Amino acid sequence: MSALHSALDAVFRPRSVAVVGATDNPRKWGYLILNSIIKAGYQGHLYPVNPRRAQVAGMSAVPRLSAIREPLDLAVVAVPNVAVPDVIAEAVDCDVKAAIVITSGFGEAGEHELAQRVLSIARRGRLRLVGPNGMGVYSRAGRFCAMMVPAPIRPGNVAFISQSGGYGVQLFLLARQVSLGIHTFVSSGNELDLTCTDYMEYFGDDPQIAAIMMYIEGLHPDEGPRFIEVARRVIQRKPVVLIKTGVSAAGARAAASHTGSLVGHDEIYDAAFHQAGILRADGPEQFFDYVKALTRLPLPRDNRMVILTRSGGAGVAAADACERRGLVLPPLSDAARKRIESFVPPFASARNPVDVTGDFDMEWFTTAQGILLDEPQFSGMIALGLSDLTVEGTADHFPTMVETIAHGLDKAGRTLLEEFRRHDKPIVVGSLTPDHPAVRMVDAGGLPIYPTPARAVDAMAALWRYKVYRQRTYNAAGPVQLTPAQEEVLALVETAQREGRPALTEPEAAQVMAAYGIPMAASRLATGVEEAAAAADELGYPLALKIVSPDILHKTDVGGVVLDLTDAEAVRETFPRLVAKVRQRRPRARIEGVLVQRMAPPDGREVLIGMKRDEQFGPVVLAGLGGIFTEVVGDTALRVAPVTTDEALEMLRELRAYPVLSGARGQAASDLDALAEIIVAVSRLAVGCPAIAELDLNPVFVYRAGQGALAVDALVTLQRG
Amino acid sequence: MSALHSALDAVFRPRSVAVVGATDNPRKWGYLILNSIIKAGYQGHLYPVNPRRAQVAGMSAVPRLSAIREPLDLAVVAVPNVAVPDVIAEAVDCDVKAAIVITSGFGEAGEHELAQRVLSIARRGRLRLVGPNGMGVYSRAGRFCAMMVPAPIRPGNVAFISQSGGYGVQLFLLARQVSLGIHTFVSSGNELDLTCTDYMEYFGDDPQIAAIMMYIEGLHPDEGPRFIEVARRVIQRKPVVLIKTGVSAAGARAAASHTGSLVGHDEIYDAAFHQAGILRADGPEQFFDYVKALTRLPLPRDNRMVILTRSGGAGVAAADACERRGLVLPPLSDAARKRIESFVPPFASARNPVDVTGDFDMEWFTTAQGILLDEPQFSGMIALGLSDLTVEGTADHFPTMVETIAHGLDKAGRTLLEEFRRHDKPIVVGSLTPDHPAVRMVDAGGLPIYPTPARAVDAMAALWRYKVYRQRTYNAAGPVQLTPAQEEVLALVETAQREGRPALTEPEAAQVMAAYGIPMAASRLATGVEEAAAAADELGYPLALKIVSPDILHKTDVGGVVLDLTDAEAVRETFPRLVAKVRQRRPRARIEGVLVQRMAPPDGREVLIGMKRDEQFGPVVLAGLGGIFTEVVGDTALRVAPVTTDEALEMLRELRAYPVLSGARGQAASDLDALAEIIVAVSRLAVGCPAIAELDLNPVFVYRAGQGALAVDALVTLQRG
Repeated sequence: MSALHSALDAVFRPRSVAVVGATDNPRKWGYLILNSIIKAGYQGHLYPVNPRRAQVAGMSAVPRLSAIREPLDLAVVAVPNVAVPDVIAEAVDCDVKAAIVITSGFGEAGEHELAQRVLSIARRGRLRLVGPNGMGVYSRAGRFCAMMVPAPIRPGNVAFISQSGGYGVQLFLLARQVSLGIHTFVSSGNELDLTCTDYMEYFGDDPQIAAIMMYIEGLHPDEGPRFIEVARRVIQRKPVVLIKTGVSAAGARAAASHTGSLVGHDEIYDAAFHQAGILRADGPEQFFDYVKALTRLPLPRDNRMVILTRSGGAGVAAADACERRGLVLPPLSDAARKRIESFVPPFASARNPVDVTGDFDMEWFTTAQGILLDEPQFSGMIALGLSDLTVEGTADHFPTMVETIAHGLDKAGRTLLEEFRRHDKPIVVGSLTPDHPAVRMVDAGGLPIYPTPARAVDAMAALWRYKVYRQRTYNAAGPVQLTPAQEEVLALVETAQREGRPALTEPEAAQVMAAYGIPMAASRLATGVEEAAAAADELGYPLALKIVSPDILHKTDVGGVVLDLTDAEAVRETFPRLVAKVRQRRPRARIEGVLVQRMAPPDGREVLIGMKRDEQFGPVVLAGLGGIFTEVVGDTALRVAPVTTDEALEMLRELRAYPVLSGARGQAASDLDALAEIIVAVSRLAVGCPAIAELDLNPVFVYRAGQGALAVDALVTLQRG
Repeated sequence: MSALHSALDAVFRPRSVAVVGATDNPRKWGYLILNSIIKAGYQGHLYPVNPRRAQVAGMSAVPRLSAIREPLDLAVVAVPNVAVPDVIAEAVDCDVKAAIVITSGFGEAGEHELAQRVLSIARRGRLRLVGPNGMGVYSRAGRFCAMMVPAPIRPGNVAFISQSGGYGVQLFLLARQVSLGIHTFVSSGNELDLTCTDYMEYFGDDPQIAAIMMYIEGLHPDEGPRFIEVARRVIQRKPVVLIKTGVSAAGARAAASHTGSLVGHDEIYDAAFHQAGILRADGPEQFFDYVKALTRLPLPRDNRMVILTRSGGAGVAAADACERRGLVLPPLSDAARKRIESFVPPFASARNPVDVTGDFDMEWFTTAQGILLDEPQFSGMIALGLSDLTVEGTADHFPTMVETIAHGLDKAGRTLLEEFRRHDKPIVVGSLTPDHPAVRMVDAGGLPIYPTPARAVDAMAALWRYKVYRQRTYNAAGPVQLTPAQEEVLALVETAQREGRPALTEPEAAQVMAAYGIPMAASRLATGVEEAAAAADELGYPLALKIVSPDILHKTDVGGVVLDLTDAEAVRETFPRLVAKVRQRRPRARIEGVLVQRMAPPDGREVLIGMKRDEQFGPVVLAGLGGIFTEVVGDTALRVAPVTTDEALEMLRELRAYPVLSGARGQAASDLDALAEIIVAVSRLAVGCPAIAELDLNPVFVYRAGQGALAVDALVTLQRG
């Protein structure tokens, strides 16, 4: 068992627990936590710690941790912030395995030094910390509920990690309302030590946990790569559904003021979640909607669905949602269509959506279920209209109708459950009356109930997306093995960085690209006119001349680029003028020479491929169509490096401008494979040369399918040494 | 009183009603309708019509309508579809004012001929029809409930029009669940005669109705302009909130199979709703969320809001939603910030969102309310966290805490209501426990409660959008007054149409554009070489030559365009070659000559401005940036003509590529006013020349601000004669 597992077992299945700051004052956290643990029926050894009371909660209290005579698994700390370092130091002395620090007033309140003091004491003593500034934990397996808000918990098989304390507990409460059972909950607070990634890893290995819910505001610096790696392993066994806030600029501001965590760019998070196979929910409703479907239903074989409805309007709403979510609605077989048409009225529709229309006894709806689920082309069913349209009072006026409806609804529900058991296909159910006994029965029988057609469809689409995520394969990243050429450019880059240079020169950049197999327009460095003319004749025309200086990042800004030279004479004439102009404009710049570069054939499309480093996720690769698409509209695709070829192709498909590249609507198809190779190579370069801060290949010209792609300009900026 | 009002009074406030097809068989619609009317306590004269029974529902039945001896306001018809024409004919003979046809099996089942027969009988007899294929009506004012599904109705002040029968009734039911009271409901069915526009107009004039909800699948051909016009008038008095389904291709298919209505392009509907000032909801939850806010709250002065929250996470979620919805979060005044900081803990935040953090007694939340609402820079408040975090069972374990929470929640709620009354500002409330007595009290006191921060923000944003819609002014359209030049081109277009030509030639198109003040590159028609050379010298260079033929729509496809001629010699040389080439490729085309056209200055941005006609809304004007933005990405903005200058400018701002035109991010700002003028002129042309089917000005070159815009190619296609 790993050290992490051992520490987290101490948190969630402690054999012995001390509550430091235990008290009988009902307004204090120390009271609530202690009494929560007692009331939840904790079976291990429990020690209230209070230096001023002999008894707390009717139990013998100890004055300090060191007074406890048995090995302690866990300390729950609810003392003022300034007292926390001493408590943690004492816990370390007593070989306590883990501590839950409820206390707030650390990083989130600007008390970073205090926080670091606590952390270094804990680290030195190999004591793991939950919190600070959290609301506690609940563990069904440990019969352990150390929560500040001791809501009775509905036990179940879902784990829930929340960075936000108050809102996390509110969502926890909401879980109860939507009949979702919790196996383990942790309010992870500031994540000074243990982070959401640690909890995810631990919950991933617990076979009793069927799904993991996470509510996060941000990851720690550099936490991103391990977060992705852990998630990829975990989602092979169980789904991870996540809410991340801090999307907007305004939201990010609020998040920064709320916790000590730094919120990265939301687009990068979004790309990372996608790469990790995590399902991101857009709010609390989707959060629970997804988890309900994922913990109850089999995954669909593919994305082909049938909608069964009792009203055309609901069917239309569901069909709209299917289109948005990438679910398709194949037609019924002729045989099935005819069978359904044999019993529904003429204004019903046996196309997909199948609208049997609304009879009171629900016979049509009930009979159609099995016919549709038997159809092999449907991998799942969206069944809408399991609703009771009568309400209190109706029975007095229309007893026959009400009885017919009640009986019909009950039968429809029972049949739905039978058909669900008979077919290995997911079924999501739409109902406006979730509290009706027949609908409750269906819910209890294992089918999730949704209040609107769109939410039912969204849940089904989440199942399908999770299936796709699980089926993806990754090239095991492994340690990067550099070729000799790559070793050489690594040294070059590191030397440049040590020299404090902001960027590589273009000939250096060309050498780096060559080492990673990134095709660039051929070039030679020339330090004199005749050298340039000779290089030009060797390279062929047309040509560009570009000034080479370690002090000039943007060559065009100083007139340092001349294009379209068509013979040696032009090169001879241009070379001195170019150098003179740059010298005039930037007299103190060191000029190392002029790059003579063959111009790329003109019939390509301009693409931008770039790389930047993110505080949380490290190197991130970006692709977009050149020009205003990228610069003005911001139409780019992002992935955290390293990127596989499949991911690179997926990036291109994500672009709004993808039709321009793929050859849709009269455009010529571009060489997507060549672009994907460059993207993959850039991601390898990012991993292989950590000293590179940012990279712009702008533009890359991509030609027709099979004819490759060629970068004509590479700007490589360096990390500060 | 208008004829429409009189007819709809007969439907919703009938003094006398006959139910044709009334029966005591509880499985028949005729039973349910009749008994619904009786049970709802209808006070007028009610006649069951049944030729085979002397008594129905304990009342004397009449064998037919003509046997009734008093003037009848309304007939409710629930007989088989083939019997409906005779019933309507009899109703006409008896001077019945209106009929509700419950019966299905008309247009929606392909029985168009039967439907037309019923309609023509009704039209001839000036009898107005509700339905067919509807679920009936409910009217609080008339104490009249003629519904197929007789759910007890929660009376209120909202009118609800639904084209969908079954789903409409389900939504109607949902309204009850979300405590929204209904004033009038109509299930408008196939809208064979009366349409949603008619009902909207009628409800718009009823001062008892505070808001109109509509659920539509599509409008009738040509209904669009009146729909917009009526809505614009109605929303000055009360908000209209609408769901329209049939968004996706799949959805549209389902809608077509469901009702007889034709679903137009969703983008056009979307533009039309925006122009009409109608708030479109994306589903049932938003539908009710919006109406609750709109019927209960004052409109905000502007879009500047404050978020008050008890948990940072909820605040972040709300701030994210504000950014998406265009609400802004100004900072607090220094004084207010200091006052709040004086009582909240150090880890709270007195920035906006104001996160007072979660104390049990809610004192911080309660005290902050008034301080924030007093701030003049906040036009409304989003108050989150009015939730009770204790659930059953907790009180036994933690009586003090539970009592503190209950008392705090009650006080927070009362204060919120007091502050609401003290300030004329909208407040939306987020609560996870809407059934808690304190939260119910707030709901009953007039503040709408929402389950998630995002939904609360959406509702607030709807209030703001409605305010903007009400403040817009329109140039009264009035009848189009044509200038003599416009009369002349109208004749020209109509002649071309009568001749069966598919399009105008370019000189004709140029004349049309000139008549409407649309600037085009100057041109002359030349029928010979020397005429061309002379025209060229007169126009100036560079020039283009374009073939002119009524038989050639796309000139470039046949080599009929040559660009960049720089002197008369080039014109003389090119002219015969151009004509020869076109003759060779299209030997049977009539060639009328060659257009000599001055080329537009090259430094403009290419824009496309176009017009097409929509079956529902008539002429629609489109604008987009030229090239792949429009063709591949589909980045266009749409409006139904006529379009005002403000709307035209708004169209340009809607484009994703707008920053390219507006001068953001290093681009030069284009002459937006000149573009807007062209858009307005195109919309006038569309209205002035109904024989024009479509128009493409592609490209229009737009130059830097103040330097105008110039169309260089105009394709004018004609309606079939």
